[in-house]
Amino acid sequence: MTGALHVFDEAIAVTPLPDATFTARTHPAYNNMVGPFGGVIAGSVINALQQHPDALGAPLAFTVNYVAPVAAGEWLLRPQIVRTNRTNQHWLFTVEQGGGIVSSGSAVFGVRRDTWGDTEATPPAAGEPADHEPVWFPEVIAWDKNYEKRFVTGRWDAQSDDSTSTLWVRDNPPRPLDFPALASIADVFYPRVFLRRGGYVPAGTISLTTYFHATEAELAAQGDDYVLATAHSARFVGGHFDQHGQIFGRAGALLATTAQIVYFKDAASAR
Amino acid sequence: MTGALHVFDEAIAVTPLPDATFTARTHPAYNNMVGPFGGVIAGSVINALQQHPDALGAPLAFTVNYVAPVAAGEWLLRPQIVRTNRTNQHWLFTVEQGGGIVSSGSAVFGVRRDTWGDTEATPPAAGEPADHEPVWFPEVIAWDKNYEKRFVTGRWDAQSDDSTSTLWVRDNPPRPLDFPALASIADVFYPRVFLRRGGYVPAGTISLTTYFHATEAELAAQGDDYVLATAHSARFVGGHFDQHGQIFGRAGALLATTAQIVYFKDAASAR
Repeated sequence: MTGALHVFDEAIAVTPLPDATFTARTHPAYNNMVGPFGGVIAGSVINALQQHPDALGAPLAFTVNYVAPVAAGEWLLRPQIVRTNRTNQHWLFTVEQGGGIVSSGSAVFGVRRDTWGDTEATPPAAGEPADHEPVWFPEVIAWDKNYEKRFVTGRWDAQSDDSTSTLWVRDNPPRPLDFPALASIADVFYPRVFLRRGGYVPAGTISLTTYFHATEAELAAQGDDYVLATAHSARFVGGHFDQHGQIFGRAGALLATTAQIVYFKDAASAR
Repeated sequence: MTGALHVFDEAIAVTPLPDATFTARTHPAYNNMVGPFGGVIAGSVINALQQHPDALGAPLAFTVNYVAPVAAGEWLLRPQIVRTNRTNQHWLFTVEQGGGIVSSGSAVFGVRRDTWGDTEATPPAAGEPADHEPVWFPEVIAWDKNYEKRFVTGRWDAQSDDSTSTLWVRDNPPRPLDFPALASIADVFYPRVFLRRGGYVPAGTISLTTYFHATEAELAAQGDDYVLATAHSARFVGGHFDQHGQIFGRAGALLATTAQIVYFKDAASAR
């Protein structure tokens, strides 16, 4: 890791301006079919907030709403600290291009304290990463090349009556896990409607919420190893579906939980 | 329902001001131990946004961050339409008292279209509402009186190694279900840490996200009947825990999914 930045660090790089806003640029390596991969917008916002001189603690909750297509090029992050309490801090933010808002949302940062704890969620049976072949999405999805994905179940090119996908995944090339990376991996699942419908359906995330559970020690222990990511939908109705996901570390710690609501369009809706 | 308003309608009442803000008042019937029940703030915000002259479609996603204690009395809702697209609309909002922000968040409204659909989530085994006695929280929790809660599992006064609570619940007295009511019921679960620790622990919701799946036909069919609400935590760590919930209609339709991140303090954190 001497010399060149990791491509993810290039993509999430932000430049603080004197008025406490930040500029960033879309990165061609994280292009999606239309516009940038949503995960890298999420990761960039988390990266910026963590660098803010008044940030308190670490990311705890994050909601980003994908409001309008993000064009290739520069964007502006305008964060607002709504309130800083003793152990948590509330943010609102907008992502702007050409004076218009293209994403918006909120974040909560928190100070972790020493308390009783327990994890009830259990990682799905997944064997070892080496038990599963890496799978790549079609060439048209640039960002895919930056995530090595070893599907345990629910490959993108399958059809199933169960919307669950479970995969071992890590940055490609490997990169130590941190909160921006976790925020981005929360969006690494392809749209669940593909799996249910057995093929491509126009779809896009509208709103994404992630809760960060990882401790600093767990992130350090994780290093650049694979995480185990699993997601499923509860309901598809009226042109939208939800997705609920969990991200476990290599040793089984629940690092994050995540949910999103997604727009989709299929034959029936085109009538 | 002739004459007097339902107490929930009293509590979520909002008054539009000429500048497109709204005023509301806390209602003593929905007091929590400290300040108002979070659900009724959520319901009031949804109620106001639905009344906004420029609102498009129906609530689809909603995130509210509980930033600071809400004092008894009047509060101001300042909604901002971030962008209106063809089939969805993005909002940011703040709830203010005395010039300070006490809650903030975002909402997405959407137009439902005729598409393929399916529900993968299945209601937990729960028998009939009449199979379970109504349970009431201690007198100090005023809002509790407005929800008839028939616990199937995970009563608030129990201890369990499983954080799941499942209950039949409806407004008391009964009231036809709508989006504000659903937004409020999403917060009807007491803190999961009580169930795990077998008693009261200081705790408060920091951020709550709800996705609305209910169709207009399902809401109409539901009427003022019970919904089946279930919630559990995935992880308790560092003074926070998450909660993931589902709300099913009487006939089994998945009306909403909801998640929240909650602050808690126990003996270990007081050291």
